[in-house]
Order: sequence, then C-alpha cells, then structure tokens
Amino acid sequence: MKKPTWVIDKERAKRASAAETVWLFGLHAVRDALLNPAREKLRLVVTKNAADRLADAIGESGIEPEMADPRKFPVPLDPGSVHQGAALEVKALDWGHLAELCEPGQDSPRLMLLDRVTDPHNVGAILRSAEVFGARAVLAPHRHSAPETGALAKTASGALERQPYLRVKNLGDAMQQLQKMGYVLIGLDGEGDEVIDDVAPKVAGLPVALVLGAEGPGLRARTRELCDHLVRIPYAGEFGSLNVSNAAAVSLYAMTRISES
Amino acid sequence: MKKPTWVIDKERAKRASAAETVWLFGLHAVRDALLNPAREKLRLVVTKNAADRLADAIGESGIEPEMADPRKFPVPLDPGSVHQGAALEVKALDWGHLAELCEPGQDSPRLMLLDRVTDPHNVGAILRSAEVFGARAVLAPHRHSAPETGALAKTASGALERQPYLRVKNLGDAMQQLQKMGYVLIGLDGEGDEVIDDVAPKVAGLPVALVLGAEGPGLRARTRELCDHLVRIPYAGEFGSLNVSNAAAVSLYAMTRISES
Repeated sequence: MKKPTWVIDKERAKRASAAETVWLFGLHAVRDALLNPAREKLRLVVTKNAADRLADAIGESGIEPEMADPRKFPVPLDPGSVHQGAALEVKALDWGHLAELCEPGQDSPRLMLLDRVTDPHNVGAILRSAEVFGARAVLAPHRHSAPETGALAKTASGALERQPYLRVKNLGDAMQQLQKMGYVLIGLDGEGDEVIDDVAPKVAGLPVALVLGAEGPGLRARTRELCDHLVRIPYAGEFGSLNVSNAAAVSLYAMTRISES
Repeated sequence: MKKPTWVIDKERAKRASAAETVWLFGLHAVRDALLNPAREKLRLVVTKNAADRLADAIGESGIEPEMADPRKFPVPLDPGSVHQGAALEVKALDWGHLAELCEPGQDSPRLMLLDRVTDPHNVGAILRSAEVFGARAVLAPHRHSAPETGALAKTASGALERQPYLRVKNLGDAMQQLQKMGYVLIGLDGEGDEVIDDVAPKVAGLPVALVLGAEGPGLRARTRELCDHLVRIPYAGEFGSLNVSNAAAVSLYAMTRISES
C-alpha cells in the first residue's frame, strides 16, 4: 500500500527541517555560538577536555552537553575537520529581511554582495573582514553560494555569530532593491574602467554595496550591468590576481579608509 | 653485520633529497610549473582529459607524461586534494640568497616577512597578493612555516612559480640583515601604537619589510622588538580580527597605494 500524501509531505517537511541544522565545530566557533543568545542550539557534543575549556560558555548557554570519547567522536563531520573535541548542532541564524537589515538610516552603511562565491573558507574570511571594517551585512544568493556550515563558521572564527550573512532569492533583484534604497553598487572587476581609489572619495557619504564575483568567472553579465561603477584594484604585477577574500578585504579597507578620513 | 657509515650516510642523503620533492596538483598549478623553465620537473602524471587540456604546456616543457586512470590516480596526495587529473613531481625552487634577492638598488622594494605562519592556504594567498602588489619577496623561517607543498601551490594559483618565497634559517637574524641593508621593518600588531595609514607616507621612498605573525600568537617577542614600527590596521568593529592573508593583502595595498601616489 502506498503511503498517503499527508504522510509523505510530513516526512518531507521533517527531512527538510533536519537538513536545515548545521554542525558547528572547533572550540572558537562553538564557544561563540554558545554565547550567542540568538542562536538556536540543539545538541552539544564534547570531550572531557573540551568541556573543561568551554565550561563557562556551556554554563552560560544552559545546554546539557553530551560527553564523547575523543577516539570515536559521534558527530557527522567532513573528514579532516579539526573539531578539537567540540561540536554543536544549531539552526541557521535568521537575519530578517533585506529592507529592514539594509535600511540606510542616518549613516552610510557598507554592504558586501557575493555573486556565486561558493568556497566556505573564502566566505568565512569575508565575514571576518566585513565585521572588522564595520560592514552592515554580507549578502549572497540562496543558490550557488556557500551555505552556513561548520567549515564556514570555523573560518569565520566567531564572526558568523555577529556579522549578518543574508541569503537572498535573486541577487539581481536584491541589487535593484538596494539601488532604490539609495545604495551605490560598485562591482569589483579586473577589467573595470575605474580604479577603486578614485571612486572611493566620490561615494564617501553614501550607502555603498561592494559586489564581488567568484574567482575565475567573476561577475555574471546581469550583475555587471546592474553595477553603477566597475572598479579594479590597482596593481603592479603583470600576472596574478587576488584571492576573492583578499580582494574583499582590500576593497572594504579602501572604502572604510576614505569614509572615515 | 652493520651497514658501514658511508652507506648509511648515502641512504640518508638519498631519503633527504627524495623528501625535498613536492607533488604539485591541479590544472592551474601544474600548467604554470610546466611553463616555468626554472622549475626542475621529475614526473608528470595526467589523465587523458587533463593531458588534452595541458597539451601546449606539456609540449613546451618537453616532459613525457605518464597516463593515469582517473579512478585510481597513482599519486600520493592528501585526501580531498582536488587534483583535476594532473600532478607534477618537482624540486623546490631555489631563490638564491637574501643579500642578492633583497638588495634595494634603485627602487624601494617591499618585502613580506612571515613569523611562523604555518597554514599553506594562507601562505599561498599571501604569495598571490605579494605578486599582485609587486612585492620583491616573501620571507619565512625554515622551521615553523608552511613548506612549498601542493596545497600551497594550488592556493597560490601560479604565483609560487613567479613570486620569490625564501626560507631563511632565522627570521630575527634576517631582520637585522635587512635593517643593515636599509629596510624599515614594520610589524603588524593589533595592539600597535601607530596606524598603518599614518606610517605609510613616512616610508614611501624607502625599502620596507612588512612583518606578520600567525593568527592567535601574533609576532614573537624578539620579532616584535626588532621592528622599527608596530602598526595596526584601523577598524571599526569591537570584535573580530582579520585572517592573516587578508591582513597581508590590506597592508601591502596600504603601502603600495602611498608609494605610487
């Protein structure tokens, strides 16, 4: 006998909900998530050693840890994940809607938009830089971009708990919405006809969204067309290009530097 | 009967020499190494598909490829290494001696010194940035820093073939040697009492060595003491710190920007 539709639907919803949980790992990432009241925590698995080192954070979070043997750590992590004896199953953070999160208000916020940057280590490093340079949020499309995973959280080194990382349905639509809100969209492009140092002072008091593509393909055609400026980072080398997280850090620095001077 | 000493020595030398070879992997890294005449190439292992994509570079290098089945790729790589069907066994590059490589001459060269940065992905990204911003060389101590490996080469995305990466016996001694050659040593330090933007114009026409430590421990005590300036990258965030390769990119950019304006 076939299962009734409602059973199938319920099972599917359950699977989908289960798929939305993430295992964070590593002492730093787990500690920062434990201390984040906005983070929905499901299971904490720790070795004796990690439990000792996280004692204060575990106490503050109120979660009951499950003790584990370091030789058989019972958590589904990618091979090679350096978990340091600590893993925390969580729900992804909810950063709300673009309209509220990116509302310019009285300051001139900086956003970082990522067009199909799929490497979790790069996105993690970008979240750190965004936090350091005071960017309001990092935006990326739901599909073809790095999801909130343990590897991303570990590279973000705590920034994932504090730096808004908003996934949007369609990046082009989000760009148009930001333009209507007053944002200047600045795409990073090796072939850009302007230099970031020249554009930065022109947009000093305005809300700015920096748009970066993946290494190799760069910005997609529609993304490029929607940008108000296409800028390059000036460089001396004949060969070579920056790693995408390094390009993000340099462009955030170039923008922050001007707006504060 | 025990082996005679000279046999033991010879075997040891042979093992040491064998240990000095490196397997580069991935289409980009292998192509750039094949095209580098200074690179001593020992074995090239490729799948049919990779051989087609590298045909021109293989032809130019003159090396005879060993064809391999993609399902059992006969090369000792770390699990998870994305080799794309191409691996090349090579000797490490010889960048010569500090005195010649770093001789200031007529220009005001920039160097990047790494104090125990062990992560190959970070060092690879730093080599890319060093190349892009025209730094003369990246220096690191022999011990406690990332050796020239396939993972480093892949992250460096070709820069390893072109950007000098010089390992020195003792970083402190190298710093003193550079000071005698006229270099200003600028250490990056979150607690630094100067801001990089303020120091950059003061050293615009001088040879400069930027010194970065590993994330977490930062610069060691002796390294810190030998620096002429300790600078921080200005930031807005209360929390957070930059990934070391991002800090390197930002500081190279901050220095290059000034010296060319």
